[in-house]
Amino acid sequence: MMKPVNGFSKLSKKEKIDWLAETYLKEQPEDVRILRQYWNEDSRLQQLHDEFTENTLSNFYFPFGLAPNFLINDELLAIPMTIEESSVIAAASKAAKFWHSRGGFKAEVLDIKKIGQVHFIYSGDFKKLQSFFEEVKPKLLNAVKPITKNMEKRGGGILDVTLKNKNQALENYYQLHCSFDTRDSMGANFINSCLEKFAEVFEAEAHTYQPFSEKEKQLEIIMSILSNYVPQCLVRAEVSCPVENLAEGHEMSGTDFAEKFIQAVKIAEIEPYRAVTHNKGIMNGVDAVVLATGNDFRAVEAGVHAFAARNGKYSSLSHAEVKDGIFKFWIDLPLALGTVGGLTSLHPLVKLALDILQQPSAEELMKIVAVAGLAQNFAAVRSLVTTGIQQGHMKMHLMNILNQQNATEAEKLALTNYFTKHTVTHSSVIEQLEKLRK
Amino acid sequence: MMKPVNGFSKLSKKEKIDWLAETYLKEQPEDVRILRQYWNEDSRLQQLHDEFTENTLSNFYFPFGLAPNFLINDELLAIPMTIEESSVIAAASKAAKFWHSRGGFKAEVLDIKKIGQVHFIYSGDFKKLQSFFEEVKPKLLNAVKPITKNMEKRGGGILDVTLKNKNQALENYYQLHCSFDTRDSMGANFINSCLEKFAEVFEAEAHTYQPFSEKEKQLEIIMSILSNYVPQCLVRAEVSCPVENLAEGHEMSGTDFAEKFIQAVKIAEIEPYRAVTHNKGIMNGVDAVVLATGNDFRAVEAGVHAFAARNGKYSSLSHAEVKDGIFKFWIDLPLALGTVGGLTSLHPLVKLALDILQQPSAEELMKIVAVAGLAQNFAAVRSLVTTGIQQGHMKMHLMNILNQQNATEAEKLALTNYFTKHTVTHSSVIEQLEKLRK
Repeated sequence: MMKPVNGFSKLSKKEKIDWLAETYLKEQPEDVRILRQYWNEDSRLQQLHDEFTENTLSNFYFPFGLAPNFLINDELLAIPMTIEESSVIAAASKAAKFWHSRGGFKAEVLDIKKIGQVHFIYSGDFKKLQSFFEEVKPKLLNAVKPITKNMEKRGGGILDVTLKNKNQALENYYQLHCSFDTRDSMGANFINSCLEKFAEVFEAEAHTYQPFSEKEKQLEIIMSILSNYVPQCLVRAEVSCPVENLAEGHEMSGTDFAEKFIQAVKIAEIEPYRAVTHNKGIMNGVDAVVLATGNDFRAVEAGVHAFAARNGKYSSLSHAEVKDGIFKFWIDLPLALGTVGGLTSLHPLVKLALDILQQPSAEELMKIVAVAGLAQNFAAVRSLVTTGIQQGHMKMHLMNILNQQNATEAEKLALTNYFTKHTVTHSSVIEQLEKLRK
Repeated sequence: MMKPVNGFSKLSKKEKIDWLAETYLKEQPEDVRILRQYWNEDSRLQQLHDEFTENTLSNFYFPFGLAPNFLINDELLAIPMTIEESSVIAAASKAAKFWHSRGGFKAEVLDIKKIGQVHFIYSGDFKKLQSFFEEVKPKLLNAVKPITKNMEKRGGGILDVTLKNKNQALENYYQLHCSFDTRDSMGANFINSCLEKFAEVFEAEAHTYQPFSEKEKQLEIIMSILSNYVPQCLVRAEVSCPVENLAEGHEMSGTDFAEKFIQAVKIAEIEPYRAVTHNKGIMNGVDAVVLATGNDFRAVEAGVHAFAARNGKYSSLSHAEVKDGIFKFWIDLPLALGTVGGLTSLHPLVKLALDILQQPSAEELMKIVAVAGLAQNFAAVRSLVTTGIQQGHMKMHLMNILNQQNATEAEKLALTNYFTKHTVTHSSVIEQLEKLRK
């Protein structure tokens, strides 16, 4: 049986790759060359990227693209998008252009509160715990001063600390529920540092609090951690125009389109199987900007989907209506984003993405990201209720297969033509290409 | 006011960048150089990456790293991970090593069913619709034969097509609810192609179905699309060992650790604010492998979080217990993944990642991804209930700030030492570094 490797993280990059080649890639010697092929020729830049995380062997490429023509609150922006899925950037650009001539996107930040919690176990009298909390609260806030000093200078800091009784849901379980304003930083390190300091002081003080019984003094911290659920860090984006202006080309009247579009959104509101995919399309746009601007897409994804389920049933994040002849389409998204700290100053392409966006504040970035999500959703639902989603997808799919087969430009042209009238499947493309080559 | 750009997608890459520089980067001329710096020197390889999507300007780097020592169903694997967040790969490796000496991970695929739906509006008699559906069903299945032929050869295909009455939830709303086995492909194109063909035939047949009234004949397709909600495409991963074997070092006994760990998981089960972050940690591991293997992380994220909310309240995806002296920690994850098609054969690093994983089938990859999620969750909760999450994070954070400030090795050493006893904040690091440099 194979043995585990010891001290792998301590090996140099070359040694790590040698070990990998020897252990798992014996039959693919060319793979080592591929790893090296993705290194940057500037060794200093490469080292920077190697150090972002642990055991780095190479750089994984994601396309860094651009969707121009986004009119957001009367400002015209081009949005950098990092995404591997074909059609997403094309769809975003198309939606941007469509709404540019119809008043553009409006976006506003509704609130910017972030949450963190100290989770603890206490068996005893809740009233005594409340008194203890009131007494110790100033000490908690005082203890974090060295951490909050700079955040307060920037206008942020701790908004509130409250005691929550969760004893009904889980025996002896209580929380310090804390809210924060972290300004232009995502704030994870700031929040977690504050919480861990709260926990340390809270527990130590409990151990010597006179009114507590011996058992009550044994108050035990389980963990201290920010929440990625941020329903109060919320942004709204919307588009609207007279129904008749929705018409494009000759296929469908504005009224028919609006009706079918709204029907599709309603289906996503009531049917979870559809809602998940509907929202996934929104996240295609959201994540592309989140990635390009160096934010944490797992945090955003988790917070957004939990928000989509907040009323007990997983549902659409976007909504549409016609009122007094005006079509309106909007979305509310919980987004905890940063434009300072983290990767934003470390990753040169993140800095570049923020330059392209004219160095937005965190609140401005929230608006841009929400708009990208709404635009993506508009484009996807529009395709679905008109031509169907596959027409565009299959064109890209065809091109990918042809590239993979090293097709020439002439072959690409011939087969693109052929497949306007036939269904693209991997095997049918190969078959036609082979026919052509004979 | 600025004007929108026309025909941007038709411009060459150079022209696109020139436009961008002229329009948005006038004050950052060095940014254009940065874009170019990330191009691959092999222009053929670069072209391949440019064509993955639209309007590509450059490559966005994500670290491509490796977490070794994963014993999964008695096979020892090193897992490639693509992730920008520090600590994730280190945590995965640590959890892998920990469980390697305690029996390793067990994983099994529970089901592999994927879902797609044709959503339509019909106003009329449901019984007549049922009869129509029964009559037309063979025609539907026959119409997709050219699409399903190859999938069937590989042992997959359409599993079922049923008619669903959703009239109660939304007036006149019905579905064709279809299930698929897409073997080693994620199957999005396959499923969507089948559904669009179903829709086309279903609608056309309805228009001429004799028993229908004129109104009933006006049955209207709203849209046809796969679902990213895949609760029946499910994999389970688990670890277990005698409670006393959980002890490591001298800090906490196995029993104390198990108790605190289980308490933390229970909190994530009942408290959504915690559940979201708990699951976000799981997704750090899941997404890192999903990305490295060329799968669609937005699809996985949406399906997983909706699954976490399936019982009406957003809750933990993992669970833990002690029974008869055995500690057990497990997770069920809905994962629709592919190891053929899509990016898997196009992106050289994806091919490499699959080579490292010994060319897994989709089911094997489901197991590996679920294990990566469970390992990540174990490491995170373990940190939280022992040292706290910040100790490790801040060490990385410190190193990032020092790199950013171009600190020398000697400066790094001195400050790493200093900050074992002081709280890391951006300003405190700068302050100490400046002190040191004076």
